[in-house]
Amino acid sequence: MTANDRTAAESQIRTLIDDRVKAVRARDMKGAMASTASDILSFDVLNPLQYAGDASRKHAGDWFSSFEGPIGYEVRDLRVTSGDDVAFSHSLNRFSGTKTGGAKVDMWVRATTCYRKNNGKWTITHEHTSVPFDVSSGKASLDLQP
Amino acid sequence: MTANDRTAAESQIRTLIDDRVKAVRARDMKGAMASTASDILSFDVLNPLQYAGDASRKHAGDWFSSFEGPIGYEVRDLRVTSGDDVAFSHSLNRFSGTKTGGAKVDMWVRATTCYRKNNGKWTITHEHTSVPFDVSSGKASLDLQP
Repeated sequence: MTANDRTAAESQIRTLIDDRVKAVRARDMKGAMASTASDILSFDVLNPLQYAGDASRKHAGDWFSSFEGPIGYEVRDLRVTSGDDVAFSHSLNRFSGTKTGGAKVDMWVRATTCYRKNNGKWTITHEHTSVPFDVSSGKASLDLQP
Repeated sequence: MTANDRTAAESQIRTLIDDRVKAVRARDMKGAMASTASDILSFDVLNPLQYAGDASRKHAGDWFSSFEGPIGYEVRDLRVTSGDDVAFSHSLNRFSGTKTGGAKVDMWVRATTCYRKNNGKWTITHEHTSVPFDVSSGKASLDLQP
């Protein structure tokens, strides 16, 4: 793979991420899931340990519906590493908004996303999103800032 | 990349993972870190949001020292995806043992690991390990089973 090819692939992945950020902000569920593989395996911030395929899509839909009004979504410290047809990225992502019921959410999560290129199209086959926890309290750390 | 080349690369990654599992079980810190890049970026189970390079190695050393006696380490549902020089893997990993002070630990975590091949050698450039949390209690879920 030439350096130019690698740069082009990484640029394609960044475009995919940008499109997804815009879709989440617009509460466009179809757009947000457009780049995910049908058999995606997700490790999510919330229980249980994993979501596979349709369960992952249902969970994303439930998450969208849990917000009232706009969803804030910011991506920071994004790094993309791509080969010919396998790639990964990681970043710190901030989600903010108001939940149905009125609770305010504003939290940073760690995100690692893994991609395969099939028939010329990059798709997300695996995604891992989480917060760390505090060992003394056993609580998930929802107020950390990068 | 031919199917044979892909199979060979995935086999190399599996060997790297096997070697690492054996090193952790043997409390062999040097062996466990042998395949990590000097500038590795880790998202760990515990605070803070991220560890980079030397901080990641120090954190791993502290973690090893926090166990009294042997460390149990089991890898389940491992999937490896590899290209020519970029790869990723994910699995559910079980850690068990006795902490200094006597507390028993036995927990499943989600692990996503990302690799680059440089000069013929695969190295881990990024790793994300976590547990999900329970939204009603705000607690990290330390007792989930796959």
